[in-house]
Amino acid sequence: MPTSQQVILSRRPQGRLDASMLDIEKVTIDEPAENEVLVRNIVFSLDPYMRPRMDDERSYIEPFAVGAPLQAGAVGEVVASRAADIPVGAHVLHMDGWREYALLPRGAVRLLKPSDHPLSYQLGVLGMPGLTAYAGLTAVAELVPEESIYISSAAGTVGAMAGQMAKLMGASQVIGSTSSGKTEYVRDELGFDEVFDYGSAPISDSLGHAANGGIDVYFDNVGGDHFAAALAHLNDFGRVVMCGTISSYDDPDAKTVPGNLFNIVRKRLRVSGMYVNDHVGMAKQFSNDVGRWLSEGRLSVRENKFHGIESAPEAFFGLLKGDYVGKVLVEL
Amino acid sequence: MPTSQQVILSRRPQGRLDASMLDIEKVTIDEPAENEVLVRNIVFSLDPYMRPRMDDERSYIEPFAVGAPLQAGAVGEVVASRAADIPVGAHVLHMDGWREYALLPRGAVRLLKPSDHPLSYQLGVLGMPGLTAYAGLTAVAELVPEESIYISSAAGTVGAMAGQMAKLMGASQVIGSTSSGKTEYVRDELGFDEVFDYGSAPISDSLGHAANGGIDVYFDNVGGDHFAAALAHLNDFGRVVMCGTISSYDDPDAKTVPGNLFNIVRKRLRVSGMYVNDHVGMAKQFSNDVGRWLSEGRLSVRENKFHGIESAPEAFFGLLKGDYVGKVLVEL
Repeated sequence: MPTSQQVILSRRPQGRLDASMLDIEKVTIDEPAENEVLVRNIVFSLDPYMRPRMDDERSYIEPFAVGAPLQAGAVGEVVASRAADIPVGAHVLHMDGWREYALLPRGAVRLLKPSDHPLSYQLGVLGMPGLTAYAGLTAVAELVPEESIYISSAAGTVGAMAGQMAKLMGASQVIGSTSSGKTEYVRDELGFDEVFDYGSAPISDSLGHAANGGIDVYFDNVGGDHFAAALAHLNDFGRVVMCGTISSYDDPDAKTVPGNLFNIVRKRLRVSGMYVNDHVGMAKQFSNDVGRWLSEGRLSVRENKFHGIESAPEAFFGLLKGDYVGKVLVEL
Repeated sequence: MPTSQQVILSRRPQGRLDASMLDIEKVTIDEPAENEVLVRNIVFSLDPYMRPRMDDERSYIEPFAVGAPLQAGAVGEVVASRAADIPVGAHVLHMDGWREYALLPRGAVRLLKPSDHPLSYQLGVLGMPGLTAYAGLTAVAELVPEESIYISSAAGTVGAMAGQMAKLMGASQVIGSTSSGKTEYVRDELGFDEVFDYGSAPISDSLGHAANGGIDVYFDNVGGDHFAAALAHLNDFGRVVMCGTISSYDDPDAKTVPGNLFNIVRKRLRVSGMYVNDHVGMAKQFSNDVGRWLSEGRLSVRENKFHGIESAPEAFFGLLKGDYVGKVLVEL
């Protein structure tokens, strides 16, 4: 039976997360029981949505439990199996990251087919973040060629892919916003047509300047002022994909209502909330398209890889501070 | 050439409308030129949306011009015609109400077929307000049987019809809100399952109490606190038809953003703005269904009729104060 190191939430943050709230502990892992598999993790994902899960019960997924290991999308190699269709040596995708070994029921792992792409891509461009961008643009926004789109948090994992995919789908103009240190990455490496630093001027002014003809779609990863600015600059019959409203995570029950919601009526907008799990039916079409784009070198993927379970807490603090550009991963 | 009395906007209100801003003047009407018709108005409609049109340029239709007669949906009889397909004696629908006679280009009138229903119904249940309710429920909300719906401004022309139609379409529960004097009308005459007085308690509390299983559709005629309350009580995959946001007409450019918009993401809601003119393609299906419901006595229609052009300003002030229950009309 292997021993495994894992990161646990030692106590719930009241306000800002600090290093005292994440502990690394060593545990012994049991052998798999009937219909279970034992997985040695190879790489796992760090994502901003994990932060509100440490807080309380108000998000759309269960909060992390105090004293238990954290969770994250992970890819690993099966080292012991009592599930008939999962051979030892297979690569599987699952949600028990933040640990070296994971003991999982068969239903909690997805067998990965051999692929030419790096395993870590299953946690980003070929995984849930990629599908979020893809389904948001197609099934939710129904983006058509020659339309223009604005994407907030354009340097984030979902935003970076949504912008590149929108361009590949024929968008006439792709506009992004990000923090000050990341505008060059968004413009030069991701190929957005326009990008602005959301902190340098009122967002509505910057967006209006970038989108002199108005926008047809807003891919919303942020909410708040970005949402209000988009309402002001959307064209008639425009669509909003609400994928996250980071700016209101701290107070989801606030009752304030925006005056400029009248724009939804005046312009006949459609605002749709999305959650990627509703769109897994598109997974095949998604992986065909994105796999092809990757093979053709038409998608830029930047990864920040940290090494060893010990690196995970500091890597996560850096992520929350916005220190990195591109997907954040921990390799074991 | 007849003389005609008409109501003009003598000056733009700064704040509250008062009697000094609406004047009645007498004018001489020209004979119709080529492709014009002269119409003697029989009845015209008074509606709340006319008030913001007196203000400024911020609504989704052009503001009324100072010194010019006001406009309103109207039905009249053609008394002189130089349009080949419009005979003298025909009844036509047009937008030049608030006056006794209207001289109109052919393209601005719609010829009405003979009907068993009162002419005034063309301005309400069989007209644009009826189509707004019908298209909002079907094309926009995609209401299906056994779903529950909440309708704000339930005693208003659109709300009253939306509630009755939703019931006829098989809604499991129809909830309305209105001001204190109109709850009995909404419950007893319109047949809503639940109704509450929006002024008697916080709207979200009243809605939560009425809709103990949550709501699937919100038909929004008001915006503001009603919208926020609906977001709190909508079920997953719920839909909002935004038909008007009266509560923000005074400040459509306000930048405040509601904290609880995160509910749109969490519950995967779809919020759609609607404008009835986008749905005229449904007019035939609409008039078939609504004509049948009327003939079968399954829709309650209450009208408040005022008589003579002189009655129009006072009738409109009463409408703005919420004095009436049912459709408000001026007969000439």
